[in-house]
Amino acid sequence: MLSLAAHSLCVRATGYQQSLRSIATVISGNKTSKIVRERLKKEVEKMASQFSGFRPGLVVLQVGIEAKHIRLPNTTTQDEVLHSIMSVNENACVHGLIVQLPLDSANCIDTELVTNAVSSQKDVDGLSCINAGKLSRGDLNDCFIPCTPNACMELIRQTGVFVAGKHAVVIGRSKIVGAPMHDLLLWNHATVTTCHSKTPDLPEQVGRADILVVGAGRAEMVRGEWVKEGAVVIDCGINHVPDETRPSGKRVVGDVHYSSASQRAGYITPVPGGVGPMTVAMLMENTVQSAQRFLLKLRR
Amino acid sequence: MLSLAAHSLCVRATGYQQSLRSIATVISGNKTSKIVRERLKKEVEKMASQFSGFRPGLVVLQVGIEAKHIRLPNTTTQDEVLHSIMSVNENACVHGLIVQLPLDSANCIDTELVTNAVSSQKDVDGLSCINAGKLSRGDLNDCFIPCTPNACMELIRQTGVFVAGKHAVVIGRSKIVGAPMHDLLLWNHATVTTCHSKTPDLPEQVGRADILVVGAGRAEMVRGEWVKEGAVVIDCGINHVPDETRPSGKRVVGDVHYSSASQRAGYITPVPGGVGPMTVAMLMENTVQSAQRFLLKLRR
Repeated sequence: MLSLAAHSLCVRATGYQQSLRSIATVISGNKTSKIVRERLKKEVEKMASQFSGFRPGLVVLQVGIEAKHIRLPNTTTQDEVLHSIMSVNENACVHGLIVQLPLDSANCIDTELVTNAVSSQKDVDGLSCINAGKLSRGDLNDCFIPCTPNACMELIRQTGVFVAGKHAVVIGRSKIVGAPMHDLLLWNHATVTTCHSKTPDLPEQVGRADILVVGAGRAEMVRGEWVKEGAVVIDCGINHVPDETRPSGKRVVGDVHYSSASQRAGYITPVPGGVGPMTVAMLMENTVQSAQRFLLKLRR
Repeated sequence: MLSLAAHSLCVRATGYQQSLRSIATVISGNKTSKIVRERLKKEVEKMASQFSGFRPGLVVLQVGIEAKHIRLPNTTTQDEVLHSIMSVNENACVHGLIVQLPLDSANCIDTELVTNAVSSQKDVDGLSCINAGKLSRGDLNDCFIPCTPNACMELIRQTGVFVAGKHAVVIGRSKIVGAPMHDLLLWNHATVTTCHSKTPDLPEQVGRADILVVGAGRAEMVRGEWVKEGAVVIDCGINHVPDETRPSGKRVVGDVHYSSASQRAGYITPVPGGVGPMTVAMLMENTVQSAQRFLLKLRR
């Protein structure tokens, strides 16, 4: 089985140097994700040479508009979705299956049921109960880690800052970002505080964070003056705000007020170009990992 | 399905009054567990009258010495344990199955595999990946919550202190206590910090806790002077320490230094007589809940 350590990038040696300037070092998701994709390309080539013509397979199952890959109409019933998932589960050429949420169907579909119908061996989104259970209880070796927290963790590793023993603060407790991010930081031995909409003293909690990961979905809610001097700040937010100076009349901002936070943070991810591109790379990483596990089983 | 609210005890009205004294109110697990057991007795009687002779069924599967119920010899193989679990899974008269850990067999047995072989519908210990996954991601309605954290939560509720918006600190991240306790406090809307052996500033972290739950397994490690004035202190520890004044030469203490902590805490559980008896009551609670779900399915 692949250990968590195996996840870590080959580019450690090129990691950022501790900044001596008072302005934060920008953690580029674009740059880091490119390195990951290049490494994955080599791993896929290696698999193809060892097992003639073998390719990792990924299926994206989506209901409704703007579909790619398996596209089911928005008249699809729950039974039809489940049946489609079962076919993919049984297809030995596919190593990953992600179900695009929300399921945009005219029929009533139980999202939890659908998410958990995906074989835990092919659940490269890491959203099934089984993978969530393993991650939350520290069994990281044979589970799939959701792509956004996995991306955040890789970006944190890129800074060279040690996670063990640090105080990490996560804002948000969603299934896709906050909750698995807590788990990943905890099992990398940080002391972790999870904050959310009911936290009354957010500025104070943020002020204690050596490592801050924000997945709150609120534009620029974390103010620079809250941030601890020298902290690692990872911003998962993607928010559209009005901007009359732009031709489109809007721009994309994160959940962190970037210009003020970058004055205090040691390291900070930009939005866009931070967590986003790394998340896509991590989906590829999980699919390649799944294909590798599949080949390992063939060899036994 | 039974909601988390339905878990809460019928004795809310008899809850403790906010202490005006400087010494902590003792949260009695003995007293509270007795009330739970009496309520469960009535619920079982109700089920028996509605479905003639029906009884909630629980199986305890144990390998090695001091076995009760299903006792497998310590020469048992993994396949035999799994076969035994499958029989119980398929037995419609059984609504709960717990596997005593560690599995004390001369043969090599994969504990994770065995824990996850228990049907998630009968996993009243709440230790399978599926139940852990649901709890960790906030799907509390149809999962089983591990008995010790469930017991702690009931004892906290008994104090009348509101959990939402409070800062809770959990010491320990075990599958049985710390990790699910974090989840339960988080989804009851506390801001939760998880501390563990790698936490460098434990006294400081403890000092911020409105609610403190300790499951560290180290005798009296939490000192009274660390505790925040008025905090709710829940002690899951059971440690045997030498005591020459006792005929047995030893006594049982918790993970909290009780005499000093009770001078600062608002509410505190004693050891013994705190979390322990409530944990046993919660196993009964989960089994009754499982039997009720079973009956609900019959009615559909």
